[in-house]
Amino acid sequence: MSKLKFTLDQIALPDAEWKTLAQKHLDKLTKPPGSLGRLEDIAKWVIQVTGKFPPQPPKKMLFTFAADHGVTDEGISAYPKSVTAQMVYNFLNGGAAVNVLARHADAEVRVIDMGVDCDFGDLPGLIKRKIAQGTQNMASGAAMHREAAETSVQTGIVLAEEAARAGVTLLGTGEMGIGNTTSSSAITAVLCRCPVESVTGRGTGIADEALLHKQAVIQQALDLNTPDPNDPLDVLSKVGGFEIGGMAGLMLGAAAHRIPVVIDGFISTAAALIAVALKPEVKAYLLAAHQSVEPGHRIALQSLDLSPLLDFNMRLGEGTGAALGMTMVDAAIKIVNEMATFEQAGVANKESV
Amino acid sequence: MSKLKFTLDQIALPDAEWKTLAQKHLDKLTKPPGSLGRLEDIAKWVIQVTGKFPPQPPKKMLFTFAADHGVTDEGISAYPKSVTAQMVYNFLNGGAAVNVLARHADAEVRVIDMGVDCDFGDLPGLIKRKIAQGTQNMASGAAMHREAAETSVQTGIVLAEEAARAGVTLLGTGEMGIGNTTSSSAITAVLCRCPVESVTGRGTGIADEALLHKQAVIQQALDLNTPDPNDPLDVLSKVGGFEIGGMAGLMLGAAAHRIPVVIDGFISTAAALIAVALKPEVKAYLLAAHQSVEPGHRIALQSLDLSPLLDFNMRLGEGTGAALGMTMVDAAIKIVNEMATFEQAGVANKESV
Repeated sequence: MSKLKFTLDQIALPDAEWKTLAQKHLDKLTKPPGSLGRLEDIAKWVIQVTGKFPPQPPKKMLFTFAADHGVTDEGISAYPKSVTAQMVYNFLNGGAAVNVLARHADAEVRVIDMGVDCDFGDLPGLIKRKIAQGTQNMASGAAMHREAAETSVQTGIVLAEEAARAGVTLLGTGEMGIGNTTSSSAITAVLCRCPVESVTGRGTGIADEALLHKQAVIQQALDLNTPDPNDPLDVLSKVGGFEIGGMAGLMLGAAAHRIPVVIDGFISTAAALIAVALKPEVKAYLLAAHQSVEPGHRIALQSLDLSPLLDFNMRLGEGTGAALGMTMVDAAIKIVNEMATFEQAGVANKESV
Repeated sequence: MSKLKFTLDQIALPDAEWKTLAQKHLDKLTKPPGSLGRLEDIAKWVIQVTGKFPPQPPKKMLFTFAADHGVTDEGISAYPKSVTAQMVYNFLNGGAAVNVLARHADAEVRVIDMGVDCDFGDLPGLIKRKIAQGTQNMASGAAMHREAAETSVQTGIVLAEEAARAGVTLLGTGEMGIGNTTSSSAITAVLCRCPVESVTGRGTGIADEALLHKQAVIQQALDLNTPDPNDPLDVLSKVGGFEIGGMAGLMLGAAAHRIPVVIDGFISTAAALIAVALKPEVKAYLLAAHQSVEPGHRIALQSLDLSPLLDFNMRLGEGTGAALGMTMVDAAIKIVNEMATFEQAGVANKESV
């Protein structure tokens, strides 16, 4: 049995009893029932997913998967392809936005080369899982072979397993890959069965004309490759990319090990569409950190029935939103573990009026 | 000249040049321009308000003002009045939600007795500024004399001055007072010139019938006391409360000392309505932490043209939302101070394509 098949078989819905137990505890705390809103929802989610009460202070790890995209040959991005590799160096030097926000969240950042078009040589800190020097151009053929798509997902699964063994209890997804909003729009169009124009945005900041061109390129790729919406690995192989497969795998591996995952923006959510298409139960393990400005993101989140935590007009990726989301998970867990109950504090409860 | 008048005269709009300088720096950092959305807005706001670049890591202080409300005699709350005092003890023992979230935000909590109906005696940690044992019942007369309203505002001003002298560079507002959503709805109805029903909600959690009663009580109070919408101190004196005056004063004192203020939910925003009515320039010093579920909150924020940072369905007050908002201010400042520039990181910028 393949690693992927084995992992999919391991994933089950988390037990609702833990949520009930969490709710009972939350209602004993010195506040009107439910008055902490989303923080209470997050607390219940962590307790249910992990099956642990009281919840542990999370050990956090954020994975930033990097890869290049052959479709950049079509001129669909505001930045040159070389920026992917340059940003990998920036991540490893700690100078990128995700490094700053992960430090703020007390999360370790892991940088994975899933397929950057650059020979990094012996680069300390880089996790080398290069599948190829970037994908092929989806506008003229499949982005990758089906085997490469499966390898990318299995790579993410193994990384989640290693994180589980290292005692990580909260995972975050992130990515870097010039051109990857193009892949994400294509995935969203296919898996959410939406018109390309409705799910394609400006990425890192292209102008009106370039946006029309980007939409045309995606439509051409879908017409040429005819990805099968009922076969997530086919979709991934047709439009890429390696980093998206890696993130989908990380989510699957996390779900198999009952580790909650905070997902980042549009590209992470496209990966979630793949993961959930492979195994619908995965959705219960995901928290959407934020609503990005990419139009496809809203549609992808709605299709997954995930309600984003933050709406900050962000569109950077890397895992920046996931890092901010992790700080809210911390806050939610502290509420459970540190607040006094009505009884402890000698405060009159609503019921006692 | 009164303390209040003197302070109002000191408040001026922050200099726009600092915002331009902040924008220039943000655009040099290794990310597409504007891609960090609200985080960039927050960074620019802090730099503009404080007139300091690079911005300092903030020294944070959160003020939780507590007071009672005579209008609780009308049975408008789900909790008994005694809970205000009980929660003061909980705050001082560190067991309330605001304590947990302020610790998470690395903010010091200051608890002010502005007028709790309880003799606390010698209670370590409590800042004693009691004006009276709670306000009078606004349904049968003015909540307080005009002098008491002015005293409550001046108390907040002095607390902001003391914080400024202690080196505090980021303030947060919060409150505790059974019955104070009733005052806040009344203030919002008057200052935003809205029908009472449109700005009155369930507070800590009253049912349908009690909500209608609460609306009727507020309408009765407005008909009886005829607060003058052009005289903010008259509004405050007619409907209360002492803690709302304290928060309004804290905002004024902060603006006079160029300290940014993160405001909490509905009651804090009602205080902001008073402060901004006294001096419109104060608005530039305020960041709205969140959108609460109280219907009047949305209207008050819109009237102030403040866009709330979080939308977490919270309705607890105390400063809980302000504490979460402070963590985002921290994140924004770290982005400015810790991210690498394109030049430092050797990353190709958009313009260089």
